[in-house]
Amino acid sequence: MEKALKGIKVLDFTHLLQGPFATQMLGDLGADVVKVERKGSGDSYRQWSFLKYWVGGTESPCFMAFNRNKRSLALDLKSSEAKEIIYKLAAECDFVIENFRPGVMDKLGFGFEDLKKINPKIIYCSSTGYGQDGPYVDRPGQDLMIQSLSGLATLTGRADAAPTPLGTGIADQLGAYNIVYGLLSALYYRERTGKGQKIEINLFQCLITHQLQEFAVTLNSGKLFERPMSGIAHPGQSAPFGIYQTSDGHMCISVNPIPVLAEVLEDEGLNDYNDPDTLYDKRDEVFFRIQASVVKQTTAYWVEKMLERDMWVSEVKNHLEVEQDPQAVHLEAFATYRHPTAGDVKTVNIPVKFSETPGEIVRHPPMVGEHNEEILKELGYDGGSIAEMQGKGVI
Amino acid sequence: MEKALKGIKVLDFTHLLQGPFATQMLGDLGADVVKVERKGSGDSYRQWSFLKYWVGGTESPCFMAFNRNKRSLALDLKSSEAKEIIYKLAAECDFVIENFRPGVMDKLGFGFEDLKKINPKIIYCSSTGYGQDGPYVDRPGQDLMIQSLSGLATLTGRADAAPTPLGTGIADQLGAYNIVYGLLSALYYRERTGKGQKIEINLFQCLITHQLQEFAVTLNSGKLFERPMSGIAHPGQSAPFGIYQTSDGHMCISVNPIPVLAEVLEDEGLNDYNDPDTLYDKRDEVFFRIQASVVKQTTAYWVEKMLERDMWVSEVKNHLEVEQDPQAVHLEAFATYRHPTAGDVKTVNIPVKFSETPGEIVRHPPMVGEHNEEILKELGYDGGSIAEMQGKGVI
Repeated sequence: MEKALKGIKVLDFTHLLQGPFATQMLGDLGADVVKVERKGSGDSYRQWSFLKYWVGGTESPCFMAFNRNKRSLALDLKSSEAKEIIYKLAAECDFVIENFRPGVMDKLGFGFEDLKKINPKIIYCSSTGYGQDGPYVDRPGQDLMIQSLSGLATLTGRADAAPTPLGTGIADQLGAYNIVYGLLSALYYRERTGKGQKIEINLFQCLITHQLQEFAVTLNSGKLFERPMSGIAHPGQSAPFGIYQTSDGHMCISVNPIPVLAEVLEDEGLNDYNDPDTLYDKRDEVFFRIQASVVKQTTAYWVEKMLERDMWVSEVKNHLEVEQDPQAVHLEAFATYRHPTAGDVKTVNIPVKFSETPGEIVRHPPMVGEHNEEILKELGYDGGSIAEMQGKGVI
Repeated sequence: MEKALKGIKVLDFTHLLQGPFATQMLGDLGADVVKVERKGSGDSYRQWSFLKYWVGGTESPCFMAFNRNKRSLALDLKSSEAKEIIYKLAAECDFVIENFRPGVMDKLGFGFEDLKKINPKIIYCSSTGYGQDGPYVDRPGQDLMIQSLSGLATLTGRADAAPTPLGTGIADQLGAYNIVYGLLSALYYRERTGKGQKIEINLFQCLITHQLQEFAVTLNSGKLFERPMSGIAHPGQSAPFGIYQTSDGHMCISVNPIPVLAEVLEDEGLNDYNDPDTLYDKRDEVFFRIQASVVKQTTAYWVEKMLERDMWVSEVKNHLEVEQDPQAVHLEAFATYRHPTAGDVKTVNIPVKFSETPGEIVRHPPMVGEHNEEILKELGYDGGSIAEMQGKGVI
């Protein structure tokens, strides 16, 4: 079957998480992504790992996660030959994407104005921590800082603990989705009008936008959210909304009618709290009362009993349990690809299902410069000139 | 200036957070979004609020957050007249989006197969908690349950506390972005080939995809992440990565070289921990040692001193502070629109900046059925037949 983004060419200058995740989404749907890397070490995310673990002993799980379905071209970006190669790629590409600090691409001669001269229909996306200018232009912009500056950290965890960031990136992932949203919208506009353009994304506004409804409250009421003293899972929510300990693990009890919960827990007294004001004002007291019942039985016992009543509840699973989760298995949420040095590597499958243009994992995350020769030949370089560039250290 | 998605017509059956956020993103860039609501009460998110706060005394901040740039058509969806109206809208729309439980749209006669007969080029997106079939098909799918089932909750907070969910939705927001990603990719394909299609999204896979790099570690190594006993902000990270208490608030110290941190904190002993293994294995000890220094001075003192050294640090801000943040002000991250009953309402501005096709907030979130007459007239209904439908309770 055909792919949705077949024929789209992406000139990809991104590194770390956000940009590569965006270009991987494009590659997953069939775009031809040429990842331009620094000759030698490549994307610095290749040196990043968790739990001292390297896939196949050498490869970064972090890099691997966000770089399938791409080809790697490794260059000495400051050489004049590299400039010529980039300009040739720019002449025939649809998207350019970069997430350097402001000004870096201009200095290299690869800014929007430079590449637009070569290809007026280009759609060029720059993503930064805080935008291309303004008081934070020189500040480093990394996910944890964006969680801290955008208000997000103040919403999570308990009142007696420090603000708690999410234990994964989030600004980066949202930045990636905003890149895709911007590029594909601009692509439709270009199909209709023939006009390219420049798009700017910044992580700060992406994470502010994530909190649209929390800001809708605070900006208009002047009221700040206060974290609960218990495990209530949103600082604006009433009981029972939270994660509870069972006799053998944890489960979540989301928004649910108190009378049904009281009946299932066999705690009639819970009904005394059953009005909206009390469920908010005494949410911690209600939480601990529910907790005292829930801890007496297993997760499976409660989840089955409560799902029978169509209650909003579920198990809390860890990542190994998710791999075995019957619905995850049914959905084929995980996939395996073959890597030249690491062997069979497991990954998360493409989440969006298309009836006519299904996405597919067709390329492993590339080694640094793995596709140098292939890409240069497509651009018209012959074996002699490629060897010459190798000799000079350009590639 | 023109808008990127000008001319795109969206038939929007969504409710609550995820679907409406997706269609708002389309509306922000100029798509004509017709929000189909239940006659009378409308989208059930209109009854949702936080902190007992209603904008202008009556309007839901949650609904308001995700429904600007749309028109509302309120119908008795089970009437034959409503069916005719929907079919007329389907005949000329580009996208249909719905987030009911599996099967609901088919029963109403508005499933993909029904609408495809009327408009073969339609791009139809269904989003659910867990997909259209499989063992969880009858389970309720709400954000907190998806955080619990996908492994995410196990990554956040401290080892001695229960798994901690993020204090905002996240599966919903990611679901919205995946809807947009799917629809706009399919739109490009349709521009090229003339073919419509069906797209399916589920929140479960969206949130699994968010954790691509954490799954890259666990799926391949078999190792689970363990939450720290201190405020280290990612369960796979080493010290100093976390949020620290200062003498007057909190700040974050992200990935930073220990020798520089030791110098700024005037704690030479920190250098004893300066190797990758120790910084992971003794991360809690290092965290508390840094904490002991950081608490002695104000946030402003440390942030200034550390930014001078180009360290990755920032303040931790609450939502009122974000509103006043100099970079947020510079970026115009917030905007105001006029609402017919609530007056001037503040909201989060469109985060993506387009050089040729800037997005714009041109419509307030609609009242239930606010655009009934306008939309029906566009479809060719005259005043008489509209009055008749009003009389019969169809609209």
